[in-house]
Amino acid sequence: MSKSLTKRSEDYSKWYNELVVKADLAENSGVRGCMVIKPYGYAIWEKMQAELDRKFKETGHENAYFPLFVPKSMFEAEEKNAEGFAKECAIVTHYRLKNDPDKPGKLMVDPNAKLEEELIVRPTSEAIIWSTYKGWVQSYRDLPLLINQWANVVRWEMRTRLFLRTAEFLWQEGHTAHATREEAVEESEKMMNVYADFAQDFMAIPVVKGIKTETERFAGAEETYCIEALMQDGKALQAGTSHFLGQNFAKAFDVKFANTEGKQEYVWGTSWGVSTRLMGALVMTHSDDQGLVLPPNLAPIQVVVVPIYKTEEQLDLIAAEVAVLTAALRKLNVTVKFDNRTTQKPGFKFAEWELKGVPIRVAVGPKDLENGTFEVARRDTLTKEVVSKNGIEVYISDLLIQIQKDLFDKALDYKNSHITEVNSFEEFTEVLNTKGGFVSAHWDGTAATEEKIKDLTKATIRCISLDRVLEAGNCVFTGESSVGRVLFAKAY
Amino acid sequence: MSKSLTKRSEDYSKWYNELVVKADLAENSGVRGCMVIKPYGYAIWEKMQAELDRKFKETGHENAYFPLFVPKSMFEAEEKNAEGFAKECAIVTHYRLKNDPDKPGKLMVDPNAKLEEELIVRPTSEAIIWSTYKGWVQSYRDLPLLINQWANVVRWEMRTRLFLRTAEFLWQEGHTAHATREEAVEESEKMMNVYADFAQDFMAIPVVKGIKTETERFAGAEETYCIEALMQDGKALQAGTSHFLGQNFAKAFDVKFANTEGKQEYVWGTSWGVSTRLMGALVMTHSDDQGLVLPPNLAPIQVVVVPIYKTEEQLDLIAAEVAVLTAALRKLNVTVKFDNRTTQKPGFKFAEWELKGVPIRVAVGPKDLENGTFEVARRDTLTKEVVSKNGIEVYISDLLIQIQKDLFDKALDYKNSHITEVNSFEEFTEVLNTKGGFVSAHWDGTAATEEKIKDLTKATIRCISLDRVLEAGNCVFTGESSVGRVLFAKAY
Repeated sequence: MSKSLTKRSEDYSKWYNELVVKADLAENSGVRGCMVIKPYGYAIWEKMQAELDRKFKETGHENAYFPLFVPKSMFEAEEKNAEGFAKECAIVTHYRLKNDPDKPGKLMVDPNAKLEEELIVRPTSEAIIWSTYKGWVQSYRDLPLLINQWANVVRWEMRTRLFLRTAEFLWQEGHTAHATREEAVEESEKMMNVYADFAQDFMAIPVVKGIKTETERFAGAEETYCIEALMQDGKALQAGTSHFLGQNFAKAFDVKFANTEGKQEYVWGTSWGVSTRLMGALVMTHSDDQGLVLPPNLAPIQVVVVPIYKTEEQLDLIAAEVAVLTAALRKLNVTVKFDNRTTQKPGFKFAEWELKGVPIRVAVGPKDLENGTFEVARRDTLTKEVVSKNGIEVYISDLLIQIQKDLFDKALDYKNSHITEVNSFEEFTEVLNTKGGFVSAHWDGTAATEEKIKDLTKATIRCISLDRVLEAGNCVFTGESSVGRVLFAKAY
Repeated sequence: MSKSLTKRSEDYSKWYNELVVKADLAENSGVRGCMVIKPYGYAIWEKMQAELDRKFKETGHENAYFPLFVPKSMFEAEEKNAEGFAKECAIVTHYRLKNDPDKPGKLMVDPNAKLEEELIVRPTSEAIIWSTYKGWVQSYRDLPLLINQWANVVRWEMRTRLFLRTAEFLWQEGHTAHATREEAVEESEKMMNVYADFAQDFMAIPVVKGIKTETERFAGAEETYCIEALMQDGKALQAGTSHFLGQNFAKAFDVKFANTEGKQEYVWGTSWGVSTRLMGALVMTHSDDQGLVLPPNLAPIQVVVVPIYKTEEQLDLIAAEVAVLTAALRKLNVTVKFDNRTTQKPGFKFAEWELKGVPIRVAVGPKDLENGTFEVARRDTLTKEVVSKNGIEVYISDLLIQIQKDLFDKALDYKNSHITEVNSFEEFTEVLNTKGGFVSAHWDGTAATEEKIKDLTKATIRCISLDRVLEAGNCVFTGESSVGRVLFAKAY
């Protein structure tokens, strides 16, 4: 609380890093690239988990748990997938430490405890799960398998940033198996929609739904559906992906079923996931130079009440009023905290809860006691109002709904005003470098052009929007013919 | 369903292994010593998690997340703890795979991607957490830290068994830091009691609360509190532990705080955990030769309704009655499933739900329609009753409470009748080898005697019960003087 945040306009990246730490969301650990998720950050993640888990179960999925380790031979079975992750794998080679004879009190890896086959710490679980599904599927009666797992995964990233890119992260990964291509495609699309609804309704983050180009597709998938969000600095962030795997993993792991005619067929698969990366998207979509701004649906504390008093007698009187208020709010399922710490002044408390993004702050002092009022402040707009205590719980409860909506609308305005159609490469680079956001441009459909544009501008094709209108045009880079625009952006 | 289970009396161990697999709780994976927790098993674990999490939060704890990996130098900082786990650690030594030049399509560990410092896959998280706490604690105002983590851990066990002993398992680990010894001891005891209440009230498993001998104590702890349960084969199972860590980890990681007088002191610590091992305890406490018996509090499905019909018209009539029943049950928060599969006969369904331990099975056929009745069967007693449909939802809801209680009482009777006082080593070995259970005996208090008894009988001191009466006596093995009895048993 002592030092203020770097301003977004000064250094957006620095602002983000400082904010995540100062708001007690997460911090770097003593382990390269791995973060510690602190209680306040984890409480937000728990709220995301609860809502996603509810949505998964509502759509017929069950949770299960598969091993952390994948033997190398299993890992490499689906070659494209293996190749896609090979360069960023943590590998277990030994299973025992022993005393270091040269350094008393220290340990060393026991060379006699080398594994016959190395184990990969899962970067994703298709391999281990499809090797298991082989035993679970015999006939069409065993399908579909609709399974989700909450787990940690490891991808050895060279440059890491809290939540956005860490060597270890938490996520959920759904893995489903179906009798037909149509059903698997439908599942992939359904889960993309579940993610989009979650992002929009719960996180107040508007997204573009689309499909990835071949270059950006998940290794081992036939199609990758995604939701793409736009951060305040004009960079895009992939917030969730859902993959139609075709029969790739079924073939790699020989997962067949007897169809209704008794004929053996390969199973069709999907996988889909979102991760603690969503925490980064949350911070960067709504927060400001004062700190975090949390949508009420995700706020561990929705309302904080700060007493303003000089004497202990005053505090007692205030506490009595606050007890009535908090009881009334809790009845309406509002999470409320009475910050009655005697070790800190109100100004300190105001700044702290502002930094931590609590949606509504209620202050109450001797004047309010006399007048039967509370002062209600919105974190998102930083506006204040004096409200009569009669029926204030309904006022606050309604205000939380309003804040949730306003945050979404504000982010939606920003997103909508940052999708810019361009028709030349000059325009393309100019928009990208000045305004930022999504650049909607014609593209000739080749990976070569995609790569050249990326090399020149750092922009990638975020997705081919599902809403795009087919229109004849010419590639913004090569001039070759194109059937429609795609969305480019610099991205996290 | 096709083949029946091995009987407990024939081969208890085989019965357990078969049951865990056949009831769809878990199975061995393609990864040595690691299990797959199947959806039905995971659903039970989720119920355990939800209740434990509620209890932890109720007692003031917050969740957080710490890295999976522990750098070797950090791991070895608390020497006793490191030594205790060194022999069973999975160790990451490399961070990249590359194409194997000799085997097209295959991968190999890239020798150029060797880590400077090896990473231990956490067998427990004291080291990484206390290295983090150092940054979180400056003054007494920062204490206590009351943090819990839900995570996977890895201990390289040579002989593994589903749930009971696996290389990777799921658990929660609480790690708290306090200003005083008294407060830390109180916390350790409080969490032991939380575990005991959970086991008894929720899992219907009676436990003995006690403290471990020095030999059996957690590596790095000053005191280990435990809850010990008794399985149907007379072997004990440690169901949860809570450790008073003294200042050991604070000293190893230099975690100090300024006390109210501004003086620097080392922090006092605790840690406590329960794991998916509880699933094994659950299975072995209540189940029988027909399969799983689940206490209603933990059953993913509390009531299953099986229709008995010949014609589709009958099924339609039954379905209409069942719809009324299920709606009424759901209003009372009873989880109910209508098994209207047309692919299976009632006999098959009965056997399947019996195997899966659903507490109450309701059957309904044309006769019941005529009479306005349902047939209600209890899984625990395998008894049946015909019940009028009027008010049956309350009957069922009450019956679930009764079953929960009866399961506990039955297990409590078993436990109480299997604590046997012995006064000679002949008696000791005889009771151990015939009757089994806890053998209550005087012990001279030395680790040497403890070890000799273990070598000779395979029995270990499970705990010094918190309820024990101090009484002068002579060690059952050496004849040396003793101040009270301790509980020996063979154990899982």
